[in-house]
Amino acid sequence: AGDAEAGKAKAAVCAACHGQNGIAQIPMYPNLAGQHEQYLASSLKAYKNGQRKGGQAAIMQGQAAALSDEDIANLAAYFASLPADGE
Amino acid sequence: AGDAEAGKAKAAVCAACHGQNGIAQIPMYPNLAGQHEQYLASSLKAYKNGQRKGGQAAIMQGQAAALSDEDIANLAAYFASLPADGE
Repeated sequence: AGDAEAGKAKAAVCAACHGQNGIAQIPMYPNLAGQHEQYLASSLKAYKNGQRKGGQAAIMQGQAAALSDEDIANLAAYFASLPADGE
Repeated sequence: AGDAEAGKAKAAVCAACHGQNGIAQIPMYPNLAGQHEQYLASSLKAYKNGQRKGGQAAIMQGQAAALSDEDIANLAAYFASLPADGE
């Protein structure tokens, strides 16, 4: 499992679309707070590998391309640790 | 926007992986409860169109292939209406 504290340190860029607390203010973007760590990591890898298209996937492909497997694990741990209701 | 009640009537098959309350009991599957309606609809369309690969996308492509645009809108409305903390 990832290191949520290390993930937090990498998550500033995510907040622009997914919210400071992992709750997206723009409804085309998903909330990440409280999502399962394993699913978050799987999704980030799919974006990085170019396996997701459609919607805003091009943005995420660019973001995920810069992430190592460790970064992905840490970010997944961080967002999974946030309360799903944003509070 | 979709009709959450109509979505609920279509959602029984979703529960096997995503939980009766939209909270997945299996961590490789995402929680859907309280997710943004627009994102849920966009994701379902991407699965239906074969634009998502990797992870468990093949399962979702099969499921989404059977859904009309109206079904997608209704399912998105239904899961968006559920509380994100599952309670």
